[in-house]
Parts: sequence; structure tokens; C-alpha cells
Amino acid sequence: MRLSRYFLPVLKETPAEAQIVSHRLMLRAGMIKQASAGIYSWLPLGYKVLKNIENIVHEEQVRAGHIPMLMPTLQSADLWRESGRYDAYGPEMLRVRDRHDRDMLYGPTNEELITDIFRSHVSSYKDLPLTLYHIQWKFRDEIRPRFGVMRGREFLMKDGYNFDLTKEDALHAYNRHLVSYLRTYERMGLQAIPMRADSGPIGGDDTHEFLVLAETGESEVFYDSEITDLKFGDREIDYDNVDQCQAVLEEFTSRYARTDETHDQAEFAKVPADRQRTARGIEVGQIFYFGTKYSDAMGANVADADGNRVPVHMGSHGIGVSRLLGAIIEASHDDNGIIWPEGVTPFHCGIVNLRQGDEQADAACDALYASLTALGLEPLYDDRDERAGGKFATMDLIGLPWRITVGPRGLKNGVVELTSRRTGESEELPPEQAVARVAEIYGKATA
Amino acid sequence: MRLSRYFLPVLKETPAEAQIVSHRLMLRAGMIKQASAGIYSWLPLGYKVLKNIENIVHEEQVRAGHIPMLMPTLQSADLWRESGRYDAYGPEMLRVRDRHDRDMLYGPTNEELITDIFRSHVSSYKDLPLTLYHIQWKFRDEIRPRFGVMRGREFLMKDGYNFDLTKEDALHAYNRHLVSYLRTYERMGLQAIPMRADSGPIGGDDTHEFLVLAETGESEVFYDSEITDLKFGDREIDYDNVDQCQAVLEEFTSRYARTDETHDQAEFAKVPADRQRTARGIEVGQIFYFGTKYSDAMGANVADADGNRVPVHMGSHGIGVSRLLGAIIEASHDDNGIIWPEGVTPFHCGIVNLRQGDEQADAACDALYASLTALGLEPLYDDRDERAGGKFATMDLIGLPWRITVGPRGLKNGVVELTSRRTGESEELPPEQAVARVAEIYGKATA
Repeated sequence: MRLSRYFLPVLKETPAEAQIVSHRLMLRAGMIKQASAGIYSWLPLGYKVLKNIENIVHEEQVRAGHIPMLMPTLQSADLWRESGRYDAYGPEMLRVRDRHDRDMLYGPTNEELITDIFRSHVSSYKDLPLTLYHIQWKFRDEIRPRFGVMRGREFLMKDGYNFDLTKEDALHAYNRHLVSYLRTYERMGLQAIPMRADSGPIGGDDTHEFLVLAETGESEVFYDSEITDLKFGDREIDYDNVDQCQAVLEEFTSRYARTDETHDQAEFAKVPADRQRTARGIEVGQIFYFGTKYSDAMGANVADADGNRVPVHMGSHGIGVSRLLGAIIEASHDDNGIIWPEGVTPFHCGIVNLRQGDEQADAACDALYASLTALGLEPLYDDRDERAGGKFATMDLIGLPWRITVGPRGLKNGVVELTSRRTGESEELPPEQAVARVAEIYGKATA
Repeated sequence: MRLSRYFLPVLKETPAEAQIVSHRLMLRAGMIKQASAGIYSWLPLGYKVLKNIENIVHEEQVRAGHIPMLMPTLQSADLWRESGRYDAYGPEMLRVRDRHDRDMLYGPTNEELITDIFRSHVSSYKDLPLTLYHIQWKFRDEIRPRFGVMRGREFLMKDGYNFDLTKEDALHAYNRHLVSYLRTYERMGLQAIPMRADSGPIGGDDTHEFLVLAETGESEVFYDSEITDLKFGDREIDYDNVDQCQAVLEEFTSRYARTDETHDQAEFAKVPADRQRTARGIEVGQIFYFGTKYSDAMGANVADADGNRVPVHMGSHGIGVSRLLGAIIEASHDDNGIIWPEGVTPFHCGIVNLRQGDEQADAACDALYASLTALGLEPLYDDRDERAGGKFATMDLIGLPWRITVGPRGLKNGVVELTSRRTGESEELPPEQAVARVAEIYGKATA
């Protein structure tokens, strides 16, 4: 993309309404614009990152054998009356009345709707196990929306639902989700720690929240410092293998790690004193096993092998897709702006032309642009007639992990400059080597 | 995907509530399930086609130089009061009140919100031309929703908005949209004819609707039969070239083609009698130039080259993404089910194992599955323990364009059967040749 043809409305001043750094930086980098309280438009740069995050979530869900679908945003109140949650849910539920005076609501979650789909179409254990998920906009009418996309009212969430014949099968589904979530967050450059949590209005006993450590987190967390040494890494896993998934769960949840909701000081005291940590965390996902809570209430039964009708065991599993942008920025920024992890960056590489209009500099930038594009990479080329300082400030603010700087002086010596946003380190090298380096970083093959 | 692990709840009986064939087939093929009146859940098969259509729309918009972003579903009433449409819009607008008693609405379209974004961030002609678009769920509270996704209440739409300094520039944006829409529909296997139409609540004088001819269409249309001979084909076009885009507009709109709203019998009579056609059509898109209607009302001005503040010229351009599934099925089906065009099919190819459990047949199917997958194709392998007749009926119903049938008898002779869903013609050939044929159809290179 050439910046002269893009829509990137960066702000010079820091918006007064933003209390936390991710909110400030998303506004300043032209990623979002508030449409009304707690509701945002995703400007082109923000939308690109949102899509990248959504794609990673999709890929890891499909890898785990879960099946994508899509449920609508507006739901009938009837199903929620069946489960008993229509009255139980507080004023966070946005209630709507249509032109025929029917009670509807903007879905904050989808247990009822998915259970209705299941009971309408599945009647035999032979169709199990089954895990369906979708990524759809949700609404929670927060009384005081704040922190930008971190606690907005309209937000994008991945929510998945497993249906299993037995508790054991459902717990395997739970473990499978835990594994897939670890992979998902790591691909985004995040360490998200599974912590024992409280189930809230979803229900159930088994639940873990995934928390990203950050000073601005809404939850106080207590953990054994050994946990932050764990990495899922690029290990191979067979999602059908019960033991493999169970082993990962045990590895990642056997040490003390809890949010304030479930914190137990006596248990925490058993952790060696030099490994006890208290910090703040941002919740970016949660998994639940809640047994037959919804299948009992809504009659979601299947015939087992003996022909008996039994309620299915269920769980639900959520990732806060839009909130992840805020969490990533909270975890990865400096005084100059955002530092995107390579896995989610909106453009792979920036190109800064120091002398726009100079024949050689323009030609060199065009050639770099063409080479990177041909390799399947997406560069953002700042081709505006601006001073170098302003171009660097914009690139630092929007946080592309790599920048290639092109100027007449370097070109005389046959070199351009490749700069890491994270370390600030620069290296001079011939243009084709700069391209090869960037391609290598993103795992693209060069000829 | 192996069917034994998928969620494809096909129905044997024809649902009574469905009046038109696309609605019936989408229900029977397990693509959608009604959640409430005019609101649907997209089951996995339907979701896949929806995504394919969405991707084609994205690709063609980006090719035309338009920039993707995303606006929220819920909007504040304030902006709509500014434009004067809050009161003007009828009961089709779903009005919502939040917990603080603020008036909101579920957006049926986005002229106000995008104009607000524009006026907040753009102040100079140097930032023009600019076309922003998004693909987002909309709501229109139809009094009698019907015909499945063709006239639902919650529906997915692409809407794009151009901002230009002059009327001439804005008309080029109009033409560019017309060209990109022609390409978009053809990639979906559809002939959509641009017809002069009425602008309705959007406003403006210049507008064309794109109509797919189908008996079940809601509009009566009148056209010169020469129009159906026009193809955009794979011609190259430079979207920045004003003359090229203008020439396409003239080629595709110079002949008589109007909906009943703008039909002029006297003009129609000038078409040679043997070329006069009356038919019904499904509206799948519309483009508008409406000048400064919203920029005047909302103060969206830019400085021109002389420093004068002038209102921008705008247009908006929509494609009914979710409704396109219905339109494609209306245009492409037979008594046995759907016939997907290759461009949008949910799976590239079906694999039917005639003797599940037979060692050779299973191995041959596994090998086909692996070969197709390695080429970047997505097969649907019916690995259930069902009779051949049932498997064929399912494949015909869900409409995959190609089917490979594998059975012990053929394998003895070293062949499988490749069948076209559209023609019903079958051919026996060795498995590796069947794979190569399918790869060739989808433009995938084999080694």
C-alpha cells in the first residue's frame, strides 16, 4: 500500500479521553474512532490488525478440529427464557423490541442459540463429538465503557461450544481448547497464562481464564513465577490424543495461578517465597466445562449406544478478539508508539523514501515495493512529500516491526537501511539483501 | 473435510415454510437455520459459501483501489438527526434504547457514520480521492420477512463510500464501482445486469441496480436482449483510467434496461420488437452518486487548491452479500439440488466412497483426499457407512460441482469416476488423472 493512497489519520496530540496507553495509541495511530460510547469504528489500519487476529483464531480452531459457522447478533428472548437467563442477566444485556413488539436482545453470548441448533439437528451419540464455533459481534451494555476496545460495548468475540456424550469426552474438549488457545496467543506474540477463575453467569465448576500480564489489567493475579518460563512453542500435537492434551493441561495449570476471584492465600503461601508473584492481568479468553446445565434446561439429548436418551455434556470457550488488540499493545509498545509482533502486524514492512521526487530514490523504493509484494509480503510505502522526521515518527507510531529507509546518499553506496522497530538497531545492506532478510523473517522463500 | 466429522444436517423433507427454491434448498442442504423471523444462523456449509462470496467482494474492492475498514452495527441516533433521516426512515429502522436511555439504532446503511469519520479526519483536497468500504451486518425490520436470506432482517452487506473533490471525479468513482461489480458478479458465476433504477431513501439522481434474472425476483424488469450477450470476461482494466471505466459503463448501460420503478414504455418501444424482453430480477447490488447531499447536511468540506472550503461529492455502493447466496441458487439449481459455480463452492470436490470399510477403497479415498489437499484444494469426503444412493443424493443436494466416486469395481481396473454436477456426465480415469483434472479446473498447478 502506498501511504499517499491510504487512509491513515494519525493524530499529533494525545486524546484527552484515553486513560490507558493502548487506547491512546490506537486513537493516535488512526486505528479506531469512537462512534458512540464504547462503540468503535475500525479505521483501515485497525481493521487490518483485527482481521489478522481473527484469522489466527480461525486457523487454530480449525487445526483443533472445531467447525466454523455464524450465528446472528440479534436473538429472540424466547430461548433465553427457556434457559432462565433472560431475567437472570442484568442490565448489561441490551434488550430490543422489534416492530411487532417481540422481545429480542443483542447476544452477549450464545449458549442458548447453539443448544437450540444442536437439539434441532442432532439426536444420536454417533454424531458426537462436535465442537462448533463462530466469531461474531457481541454487545454488553457496560455502565461505564472505558479503555477503548478493552472494555467496549460492541466487541468481537470467538465463542465455541463442545457437545460430548460423557463428562470425560467433554473434559478432553476442554483440554483441546486449552491447547489451541496457548498456540493462538503465542502466534500473536502474547504470553497468556491460564488461571483458575470464577465461572460467573455462564455457570459450571471447571473454568480457566487466560491472562496477559500488564500494569493496566483489570484483574489482580497471583502466580508462581515458574509459570512465565513455560512456552508451548512449535511442538506438534495430535488434538485427538487424550493423553497429549491432558499432559499440556497439567503442565500449564499445575502451578499456582489464580485471579483475585479464586485466590486462596493459604495455598499461595505454599509456593516458595521467591517465586510468589502478584501482578495485574488482562483477560483475553476463558474456557468452561458446565456439564448438562443448558442441555438439561433445553432438552438437548441424544441416544447413547444402548438407546437411552441422555443430556449432552457441554462447555463454552471464548477469545476476546477485538480486546486482543488492546492487550497486545499494552504488552508491546514504547514511548514512540506501538511495536507489533510479526504475527499480527498490519503491514510486514515499512518503506521510507527520504527524498520523494528524487529519480533514483523513487525507483529504488518502487523496486523494493515490487520485490516484497512478489514474495507475498505487504509493505507500506510512505511516498508522501514529507520530511524524514515526520515519516519516521509515523512509522514508529504505527509500529511496523521492520522499516527499510531509502535515500540518495545510501543508494550512491548501493545500500538501504533495515531497522528493527523493537531494538531500534539498523543495518546497511544492498536492497536485494534487505528484501531477502525481511522475507526470511516472515518465512517467505526467496528464489 | 471428512463428512463423519462435519456438521451437515441435511433434511429429507421439504420445509413447509419455504416458498422459493433457494430458501428450500438452503434449509434442506443444512446451510441455514432460522433463529427468529428473518434472522438466520449460518450452519457450517452456508457459512463457507458466505465467506467465499465475502472474499470475492473484498478482493475485487481492493483491486479497484478501495480501502477496507469496519463500522459498528449499532449507531447513535444523533448523526441520523443531523442528516434528517432519523425521522424520515420508516419502521424498517430498528430503534434501540440503551441502559442510559440514549437513542440508538441498528444500522441499515452507513452514510452518516462514514461522513462523520470523513469530516473528522480529512480537510484537504490532497487526501482525495478516497473510497472506504466495509462488509458488516445490517438490520432492516421488514414487516414480512420471507424468502430466507433473500429478504431477511439481519443481512450482510458490503457498502462503500467515495469522497471526491468534483462531480467529475465522483462520477469516475461511480464508473469504477460499476466495473468492479461486473467483475465481482461474474466471478460468482452470475450475470448481473446494471439497470437504471430509483434512488429511494439514499437519494441522488444517478443510480444503477444490478439484477440477476430469475423467476422468483421481486422486481419486474424490461430490457434489450442484446444486454445478456455482454460479458466482462477477463479483460484487463486500469481502475485509475477514466476513459477505460467510462467505456465499460457505456458498453453495459447504453441499451435499454430498467426496473419497473423507472420503466418508460415509450423509450422501451424504440427497442426493436424482437429484442424487447420482460422478466423478473433479483437485486444484488446498487450504486449511487448523490453529490453533496450528506456533505452539505453534515458539513463535510475540504479545502480545494485555492484554499476555498467546498463540500465533497459522494456516492455509495452496495452489494447484498448474504442475499447473493439465494440469488446464486435461484440461478443455478436443478430438481436434485444446488449447483454451485466453481467460484463460490463450499468444497472444491466431493469424494464418495462406495464401500466404506473396504481396505482398498478406503486407501484410494485417503490418497485422493491427501493429493487434493496438497494442491490447496478442499475436498469433502463422504466417509460415512451409508448406501451409495444416500451419498449421491447428499452430494447432489449440496451441489459440489465435481464428484469423484471410488469403488472396488473401478479400482480393480485402476479407475475412479469423475462426475460433473452440472451436466451429470461421468468419466472413468485413473485417480491421479482425476486429481489433475480437478486441479486444472480450479487453476491449481500440479507437479
